[in-house]
Amino acid sequence: MIKVAIVGQGLVALHFEVGLEKLKRNEISDYGVPLRNWLPYKYSDIEVVSAYDVDESKVGRTIYELAKQYYEGNGPIPGTLKDLIVKRGIHLNSLKGLPFKARGREELMDYEKAVWEIIDEWRSLGVDVVVNTMTTEPVEPVGNINELHERFRAAGLTASQTYAYMTALYSSKYKNAVFVNAIPSPIANDPAFVELYKISRGVVFGDDGSTGATPLTADLLEHMYERNRKVIDIAQFNIGGNTDFLALNLPERNIMKKKTKSALVSDILGYEAPNYIRPTGYLEPLGDKKFVAMIIEYYSFGEFKDELYVVWRINDSPALAGLLVDLVRLGKIALDRETYGTVYEVNAFYTKKPGPSGSRIVSKFKAYELLLNWLGIKDPRM
Amino acid sequence: MIKVAIVGQGLVALHFEVGLEKLKRNEISDYGVPLRNWLPYKYSDIEVVSAYDVDESKVGRTIYELAKQYYEGNGPIPGTLKDLIVKRGIHLNSLKGLPFKARGREELMDYEKAVWEIIDEWRSLGVDVVVNTMTTEPVEPVGNINELHERFRAAGLTASQTYAYMTALYSSKYKNAVFVNAIPSPIANDPAFVELYKISRGVVFGDDGSTGATPLTADLLEHMYERNRKVIDIAQFNIGGNTDFLALNLPERNIMKKKTKSALVSDILGYEAPNYIRPTGYLEPLGDKKFVAMIIEYYSFGEFKDELYVVWRINDSPALAGLLVDLVRLGKIALDRETYGTVYEVNAFYTKKPGPSGSRIVSKFKAYELLLNWLGIKDPRM
Amino acid sequence: MIKVAIVGQGLVALHFEVGLEKLKRNEISDYGVPLRNWLPYKYSDIEVVSAYDVDESKVGRTIYELAKQYYEGNGPIPGTLKDLIVKRGIHLNSLKGLPFKARGREELMDYEKAVWEIIDEWRSLGVDVVVNTMTTEPVEPVGNINELHERFRAAGLTASQTYAYMTALYSSKYKNAVFVNAIPSPIANDPAFVELYKISRGVVFGDDGSTGATPLTADLLEHMYERNRKVIDIAQFNIGGNTDFLALNLPERNIMKKKTKSALVSDILGYEAPNYIRPTGYLEPLGDKKFVAMIIEYYSFGEFKDELYVVWRINDSPALAGLLVDLVRLGKIALDRETYGTVYEVNAFYTKKPGPSGSRIVSKFKAYELLLNWLGIKDPRM
Amino acid sequence: MIKVAIVGQGLVALHFEVGLEKLKRNEISDYGVPLRNWLPYKYSDIEVVSAYDVDESKVGRTIYELAKQYYEGNGPIPGTLKDLIVKRGIHLNSLKGLPFKARGREELMDYEKAVWEIIDEWRSLGVDVVVNTMTTEPVEPVGNINELHERFRAAGLTASQTYAYMTALYSSKYKNAVFVNAIPSPIANDPAFVELYKISRGVVFGDDGSTGATPLTADLLEHMYERNRKVIDIAQFNIGGNTDFLALNLPERNIMKKKTKSALVSDILGYEAPNYIRPTGYLEPLGDKKFVAMIIEYYSFGEFKDELYVVWRINDSPALAGLLVDLVRLGKIALDRETYGTVYEVNAFYTKKPGPSGSRIVSKFKAYELLLNWLGIKDPRM
Repeated sequence: MIKVAIVGQGLVALHFEVGLEKLKRNEISDYGVPLRNWLPYKYSDIEVVSAYDVDESKVGRTIYELAKQYYEGNGPIPGTLKDLIVKRGIHLNSLKGLPFKARGREELMDYEKAVWEIIDEWRSLGVDVVVNTMTTEPVEPVGNINELHERFRAAGLTASQTYAYMTALYSSKYKNAVFVNAIPSPIANDPAFVELYKISRGVVFGDDGSTGATPLTADLLEHMYERNRKVIDIAQFNIGGNTDFLALNLPERNIMKKKTKSALVSDILGYEAPNYIRPTGYLEPLGDKKFVAMIIEYYSFGEFKDELYVVWRINDSPALAGLLVDLVRLGKIALDRETYGTVYEVNAFYTKKPGPSGSRIVSKFKAYELLLNWLGIKDPRM
Repeated sequence: MIKVAIVGQGLVALHFEVGLEKLKRNEISDYGVPLRNWLPYKYSDIEVVSAYDVDESKVGRTIYELAKQYYEGNGPIPGTLKDLIVKRGIHLNSLKGLPFKARGREELMDYEKAVWEIIDEWRSLGVDVVVNTMTTEPVEPVGNINELHERFRAAGLTASQTYAYMTALYSSKYKNAVFVNAIPSPIANDPAFVELYKISRGVVFGDDGSTGATPLTADLLEHMYERNRKVIDIAQFNIGGNTDFLALNLPERNIMKKKTKSALVSDILGYEAPNYIRPTGYLEPLGDKKFVAMIIEYYSFGEFKDELYVVWRINDSPALAGLLVDLVRLGKIALDRETYGTVYEVNAFYTKKPGPSGSRIVSKFKAYELLLNWLGIKDPRM
Repeated sequence: MIKVAIVGQGLVALHFEVGLEKLKRNEISDYGVPLRNWLPYKYSDIEVVSAYDVDESKVGRTIYELAKQYYEGNGPIPGTLKDLIVKRGIHLNSLKGLPFKARGREELMDYEKAVWEIIDEWRSLGVDVVVNTMTTEPVEPVGNINELHERFRAAGLTASQTYAYMTALYSSKYKNAVFVNAIPSPIANDPAFVELYKISRGVVFGDDGSTGATPLTADLLEHMYERNRKVIDIAQFNIGGNTDFLALNLPERNIMKKKTKSALVSDILGYEAPNYIRPTGYLEPLGDKKFVAMIIEYYSFGEFKDELYVVWRINDSPALAGLLVDLVRLGKIALDRETYGTVYEVNAFYTKKPGPSGSRIVSKFKAYELLLNWLGIKDPRM
Repeated sequence: MIKVAIVGQGLVALHFEVGLEKLKRNEISDYGVPLRNWLPYKYSDIEVVSAYDVDESKVGRTIYELAKQYYEGNGPIPGTLKDLIVKRGIHLNSLKGLPFKARGREELMDYEKAVWEIIDEWRSLGVDVVVNTMTTEPVEPVGNINELHERFRAAGLTASQTYAYMTALYSSKYKNAVFVNAIPSPIANDPAFVELYKISRGVVFGDDGSTGATPLTADLLEHMYERNRKVIDIAQFNIGGNTDFLALNLPERNIMKKKTKSALVSDILGYEAPNYIRPTGYLEPLGDKKFVAMIIEYYSFGEFKDELYVVWRINDSPALAGLLVDLVRLGKIALDRETYGTVYEVNAFYTKKPGPSGSRIVSKFKAYELLLNWLGIKDPRM
């Protein structure tokens, strides 16, 4: 069994929890789970045992209740989700500036006490994997492991960093554990954290789950590169109506997304091509089904100019939830193999900014091969 | 040096001839030439020594004159093209039904005499590669080599087949040679021809140059497969204003295109997905810059439905011309290696219907790797 | 009250019947009904009293049952539809070539008897409006009223023409009546029928309900005209998965659609612009939600070339059903005003090929004004 | 003759000057000039006599030289433009924050002297129309005419406002004149300016030339309204590489554009629909040919949801230049009619924020009719 704790009980978490239960009951196919049933761990091996949030409207409610509210109209909600209750997590201002009434456990008690109380919960539940799906937060890498220790003690890390640190603590003290960082905060890209996980005999995957238009952009650029087409410019717009877009409307949070995308173009093409790739706006009625528009202009043979336009509607949260079904299993496999620290071959496929720091961004096609090679799996089509 | 004869002096041939001269003079970059300067043969090693057509408005004119007429507004025409004159080729009704006044050499003299006259021209010019860029013709594979011999003798092959046969004859008698079949006619997919080329110590590449939307569709489907997204349906429309679209308006010619695309979807996805992929219409003012529109609907995790739309403007002929710059060099390399018959690793990347018959269609990403492996080239980005 | 009989119990009819009941119960808003509650007749004044089809899988079943089957997932079905049973109608080969098992009433009894039996049904139900929503059929206008009488007697008309004739007969004999022709068959564009309706003191509206991309194309062209932009070319593709697209796959039926669109471009722009506007294909999983892709290229000031692309997903049947809610009311208003024959001001807005024959196609903006003027309604925004 | 002075010698001005000369010589058709040759004033009646800018790289150079630099590749430049030299204009920080070396005449001499020197130039040239095509500037309406006088004296207006005031001064003192405000600065929407023009027996048109995607959005919304489709949301992205997009990247300038678009949706639909309509970014290689992407989601009959996507490439500057060919002629017509102040019927069609302040935004179709009615012109198609 792989026991999972979720931090950040938003739409992604909800789609992961609901989808996983449905998968176990064979109510849905495993579409959107890249490694499907090819892994030694099956869907039925995964169990979400705990979920944390600081939004007062969620803390204390069951996932079933939340699903009734936010998943409405997408079919029946598995009854097993009545047993999973959202616990109060660490806040540390992770929802600052957003229209939610939030209170963290550290605001109700001593910070250190709050932290250890949660770690104790994980111990009693036997948690293997902590999945971070909270809202994008503004944050820089720490870099130095001593400073990291220092700042953790002083409550001077962001919520994501704090959970990542707590998972490492838990891993070193109680049970080898995995931290899956699905958001842009630099954890797997922070040398301090990678070192910490090596020491703690744990695994960190990240950063920033590779969904939406970015992975396709990577593969479109690879397609251009392999024909030696000269990309003149790229623009990619994103607009949606979920909390993530609301958060990205705040400039200091938007900058986090831009950073994870900036290296993509030059790493894949081998040269700088002028680009404008970033989340663009918030439009509430779009909900979780975002709208993406893209232009790529390039020179073909003879320096003739072609234009490629992409228009896309994507259910934002389910796409990431599907990747999580793989990532928790891959985390357990990494632990089984005692591959501590982080795993580039996993990060390269599943994240937008694959750790460790300084890693090259490759196309998703290349990353998929790296992943299968790392796993020793052969593509059954071949 | 690689000496090239062109059969079918249309827009593709023109872009190849003009572009190649410009490349040699460094007037343009080598955009759209996938293997750029990675090959032992350089652009300056390629020389077009002969061009054949049956359109009365072209026969006897120089490529320079044709470029003045059809390449207008795309910059100055290299003066060297004044020395290349379009010769009368074999017709065999290859332009039947199209609004061109056409007469083949076999209509002016005995069929056998016409055929051998052309082969003699090739011998005196020292031709290495014959490139077939004529208009799409309706044709079925012959299959049996004896029948192939028989039908050649009886003037019972199409123009493409006849040239392919002539190239094999030439290869066996005078100089090892390559036939690059850039159009849908099944040559590399015809076991009779592949056998003939093995016997003749020649090489045939084909069939149907992989340009336009089809290679991107292949890679988009691969992208879907690698995420286990379930493709619900695909529609892809193409409309343009060049001779190829005019020809494809004739139902018996359109069917040729449809055939080369039908295996693509199931080979890459591993299952049948309902699709509608074919050239759609002729609209004269679009000229050579075709308009492609595409929809791909798929299920994401949780069986949520996403929709991907692609709108594309493509300069049709230059795209194929750029591939020819590689194919004539790859043909010479295959001859150098004495790899006779056909080469799947080349066909898989450069053609829509890679020979030999029965070959699997793989994504272009996979094909690109197969190609680099076959060549022993390492991607310089890695 | 306005009593309506439907001929052709397909998806359009179903959306009309279900939507109307929901409107009466205030379960939905009146979106998609252009004249909303501005007319003297209200939604509650409309009653569907009879529905006819020849598809054996529909005849004898209730609309409620059909809605359960085809409207699934779009909310609860009004129980009143349990009282409306599909009656066997006139066939006359209207489903020839399509994969349905069909049998018309005239195949079970004498043709004349079948016709009069249906007219008698209308009389006993007090029908005011007959709405034709059957599948597109190949047909030419009759032109001459004597020939029309002749062909009706000889069972030599298509199903649509036969119903249109029957409605006129009914109108002259029993009760003034309206025939709303929502399909491409030329009825309001057939001088013979218009004359027949004048004599019969009835009204015919048509032809071909103006939904989908065509009305928008009309208004886009008007937009171009009003800026004196020179349209270079237009291409418009349509693909869907409903019966109408299946039928249009048959060439002789497709030609009917092409005809209703050909005059549009030149009538609005004032010059011929090369165009390719027609239903393109059938792709079953798209269902009733068709995919439209369009390109319009034009010259702006200084002869600079701009390109406009439209990608559209349209629920095909509801769009037409919404227009029918107006058309049955407008038909009754025309009867009240004793405006017999046909009404260009109504046809111009609601149809693609507005009768009478020879009428100019205007943009939908102009048509909307003509319509409001005819009605004496003032746009409340002004 | 209509003598025109341009303020802001950017791309729009260049396309106006070059295009007008070409029109006079019949080198191009009058595409993009909405009222074409329907007006009493002909293209040959228009003469650009003066052009002002503060960019040091432009001041003192001829329009011919600028055209050689910026209009390259769009055909030969009329030689008459060698006689038109860019004069130093008023700066007042209108290029603040932009990467141009700028110096205004008021920086070389006394402010009052600079202003009157320019007015004297207009007098000696006999200027009739001053056209404002400078870069978007951040500015609020003044509102009160006394404050306007005050701020003009104190050099406390923006460059646009200062030119508008100068034109009124010139009109009252020397010759009735027109100010065409093609940029977002509120001039025709400033009650103080409208009053000033009435007093000065001059005409002001504005504000913000209606080109790009906004007029089409207006007509698409009208199309939705006339079918009673319920618009759920609208997003519209714009990205380009000209100076205007560069300027709009500065938040205080972007806000000016957003303001002119906010009333559009509710005025035309009659209700508020959530929208995100604004210039989105700057991408240099796109140059003057911007990329627009749009989504409109709406409910059709039965509350079925449709989605409309628009992708558009627009030559930005020529589109506005074409409107100016009308606006200078309409200005002269207004003067001939002694219709002083501003003219809603002109502004409604040609501008995004039609003055006077508080005017309703109507669809461009309606506006076109208002315009033709005001002119007494009958659409020749009818």
